[in-house]
Amino acid sequence: MQAIKQYIETHKQRLLDELFELLRFPSVSADPKYKADVLNAADYVAKKLTDAGADKVEVCQTAGYPIVYGEKIIDGGLPTVLVYGHYDVQPADPLELWLTPPFEPTIRDGKIYARGACDDKGQFYMHVKAFELMMQTDTLPCNIKFMIEGEEEVGSNNLGIFVKANKERLKADVVLISDTSMISMEHPSLETGLRGLSYLEVEVTGPNRDLHSGVYGGAVANPATVLAKMIASLHDEDNHIAIPGFYADVLELTESERAELNAAPYDEEEYKKDLDIAETWGEKGYTTFERTGTRPTLEVNGIWGGYIGEGAKTVLPSKASAKISMRLVPNQTSEKITQLFTDHFLKIAPKYVKVKVTPHHGGEPVVTPTDSIAYKAAQKAIAEAFGKQPIPTRGGGSIPIVALFEAELGLKTVLMGFGLDSDALHSPNEKYDIFNYYKGIETIPLFHKYFAELTADFS
Amino acid sequence: MQAIKQYIETHKQRLLDELFELLRFPSVSADPKYKADVLNAADYVAKKLTDAGADKVEVCQTAGYPIVYGEKIIDGGLPTVLVYGHYDVQPADPLELWLTPPFEPTIRDGKIYARGACDDKGQFYMHVKAFELMMQTDTLPCNIKFMIEGEEEVGSNNLGIFVKANKERLKADVVLISDTSMISMEHPSLETGLRGLSYLEVEVTGPNRDLHSGVYGGAVANPATVLAKMIASLHDEDNHIAIPGFYADVLELTESERAELNAAPYDEEEYKKDLDIAETWGEKGYTTFERTGTRPTLEVNGIWGGYIGEGAKTVLPSKASAKISMRLVPNQTSEKITQLFTDHFLKIAPKYVKVKVTPHHGGEPVVTPTDSIAYKAAQKAIAEAFGKQPIPTRGGGSIPIVALFEAELGLKTVLMGFGLDSDALHSPNEKYDIFNYYKGIETIPLFHKYFAELTADFS
Repeated sequence: MQAIKQYIETHKQRLLDELFELLRFPSVSADPKYKADVLNAADYVAKKLTDAGADKVEVCQTAGYPIVYGEKIIDGGLPTVLVYGHYDVQPADPLELWLTPPFEPTIRDGKIYARGACDDKGQFYMHVKAFELMMQTDTLPCNIKFMIEGEEEVGSNNLGIFVKANKERLKADVVLISDTSMISMEHPSLETGLRGLSYLEVEVTGPNRDLHSGVYGGAVANPATVLAKMIASLHDEDNHIAIPGFYADVLELTESERAELNAAPYDEEEYKKDLDIAETWGEKGYTTFERTGTRPTLEVNGIWGGYIGEGAKTVLPSKASAKISMRLVPNQTSEKITQLFTDHFLKIAPKYVKVKVTPHHGGEPVVTPTDSIAYKAAQKAIAEAFGKQPIPTRGGGSIPIVALFEAELGLKTVLMGFGLDSDALHSPNEKYDIFNYYKGIETIPLFHKYFAELTADFS
Repeated sequence: MQAIKQYIETHKQRLLDELFELLRFPSVSADPKYKADVLNAADYVAKKLTDAGADKVEVCQTAGYPIVYGEKIIDGGLPTVLVYGHYDVQPADPLELWLTPPFEPTIRDGKIYARGACDDKGQFYMHVKAFELMMQTDTLPCNIKFMIEGEEEVGSNNLGIFVKANKERLKADVVLISDTSMISMEHPSLETGLRGLSYLEVEVTGPNRDLHSGVYGGAVANPATVLAKMIASLHDEDNHIAIPGFYADVLELTESERAELNAAPYDEEEYKKDLDIAETWGEKGYTTFERTGTRPTLEVNGIWGGYIGEGAKTVLPSKASAKISMRLVPNQTSEKITQLFTDHFLKIAPKYVKVKVTPHHGGEPVVTPTDSIAYKAAQKAIAEAFGKQPIPTRGGGSIPIVALFEAELGLKTVLMGFGLDSDALHSPNEKYDIFNYYKGIETIPLFHKYFAELTADFS
């Protein structure tokens, strides 16, 4: 532990500088105008893996953006940790809300502000530096493989193909991912589950053109109003999702699981104050943690129709649309829920309009068993690095590829993330605390150490 | 009548060319980037009034766009007709839906396609040419005054000030406006009423920033969903507006008025086919004509919030907004309804969100008495020009300044328009039939003739 801290202290500036360089690539996978930047970011990652001591480093071509691979095999008899991360980032808009440019990393109050600072560059890069640290201090206890992709923010469409085609190369004993958050640095925690995702776009069409709302208003159904009514019908008065069959496969938590989850520290006033809301909201009968971690939800991510520019325009719009996504919990499946939503939405559409439902990428919910070697190794690593046991938590977000790794590689995933809720992922002024960055680099080698030890104990 | 037709036939190309020149000015009052074009259009109108024989032609400055004035006083003892029109036009967007450029007038199938072709340039310019015709054939029977403004599409904010400051100059016996439509050229009609307007913008704010819908979804109220629910609540299951007190001042039509209104030709299948809708929609217990002409309505003109670009972005939006307008009927008033809506909308807002309501310009509903000299003069003019009596109709749209003229100048307005429902006002590919343009120029001198005769009979 002392050696780890010493190494970080000695190289702390360079560790930060390299991350800043990575952050400067506007590797926005959702927008083709940034294609060159995404590819440059991939090359940078490959270079740093090589510099850290990885072998067989390759920028693997796919039908989309490349996947960067690298490995260090020290002994076939040792366990292998497969590290996953992504070098692509969310779009930065709305730009005008950023205090400093999203791709010019800036430090304020001990935090690095940049798009991708936390999601996911700051987090996966800790693994590259932890690897370098273990190589330089000659303490690498496991084989290690890196798989860093460039399309996570747009659905990882080519990852499945890559994984299926590279099962031998990717053979390992566990997948390790840092792309989630802890409750706080005072209350370290470990994600034991993630929600799944079903994402769709709906379009309601009334008349075949925008109409003058005076000439036609009152005689023709307004698609914006119809869409509003359809969306309004999706939650009942207990904020329960009102799609028949939606909850059929949901696994309820046991009483002790609920108690453990709710024992985590939570300050409702702080939560409300941070968001500047008067009241939290959610499914009746469940706490905030349960609502975000163990219950499925339905959100409108975007809605638009008619005239939305400056001033007044009296149109009765031809169309209105919305992007709607649902977070899923075990044992719901993305395909079944997407179909259920589609069928229901088409069914509730009134005869005055035509409705189109287009599914986007989805992802399955996952749970990591807390009695596994991998989970225990993470638990011990965090206990040592932080001086206290991590609290088990259920994450609200989705990392769809975790289910993919289990299905195709037979591997469980440990979600050992060092982010914070305040990091503002997907929002303007995303940040990552410098303290967390270094803490992660300190903790990760301990995971490898305990994973190797517990595997040896077990065998 | 023969002389009128002869004149039109002789000058038909020039009459069209001059209108085309007027249509080429992109006089979009809502967008400051077209300022010079709006002013140039005003100058053109002034020049054409002068060319037609008007005196005291003036481009009158206001705090906004100018009002073009001109007159011909032949005899203080004759009645005076005050012609109102507007030379500004609606924005042309969405541009990509126009088959030919909106400001390059193009003829297809006997129709002039251009923004402003019908609303209002084609229509008011008929009056300028009818005036020229009467001057050239020495048949002008009334005094005539022109008041052509440049801000009708943005609320005519400076018209009231101008009218109040020019009561002497604008002294007249009737206001004549062509800015409405007929059922068809086979079924000429006369507008006997217009709906009023109340227009507001609402904004619902939840959390103080866009949130990651995984991390927060289920625990924080989504403003887009809340807005949808609030909008959904504004109509009940009979499509009746569900704001308490909304209908308090609405004048129901008598049985005979309803019968007369519904006697006008209406082909429901044709109506639906034109709009490509399976069913018409509206307030239970009322026909399509009643719903658009005699009943108040509430429409969502625009709605937006969250991520509305390409692809998927999993945000729980901070805000969602909508533009909502209501059409009013006698004796509702714009101020009272705007206040009623505002109070109600703020009241139904749940505690999870903050709601802001911003009123835009409004307008009062009006009815023209069918037993007035002015109405009868229009009726006779149309009967002669078309060979059949005009059907009395109630217009769905609003021309707010009509109420202004009554209040400030004590004048009733005759709405003698020659447009058609198919003209696509406020939409892409707006048009005006060439037949209608010439027919209007033919009919308008007859109005002046009969207005003078009936006034003389009456006195």
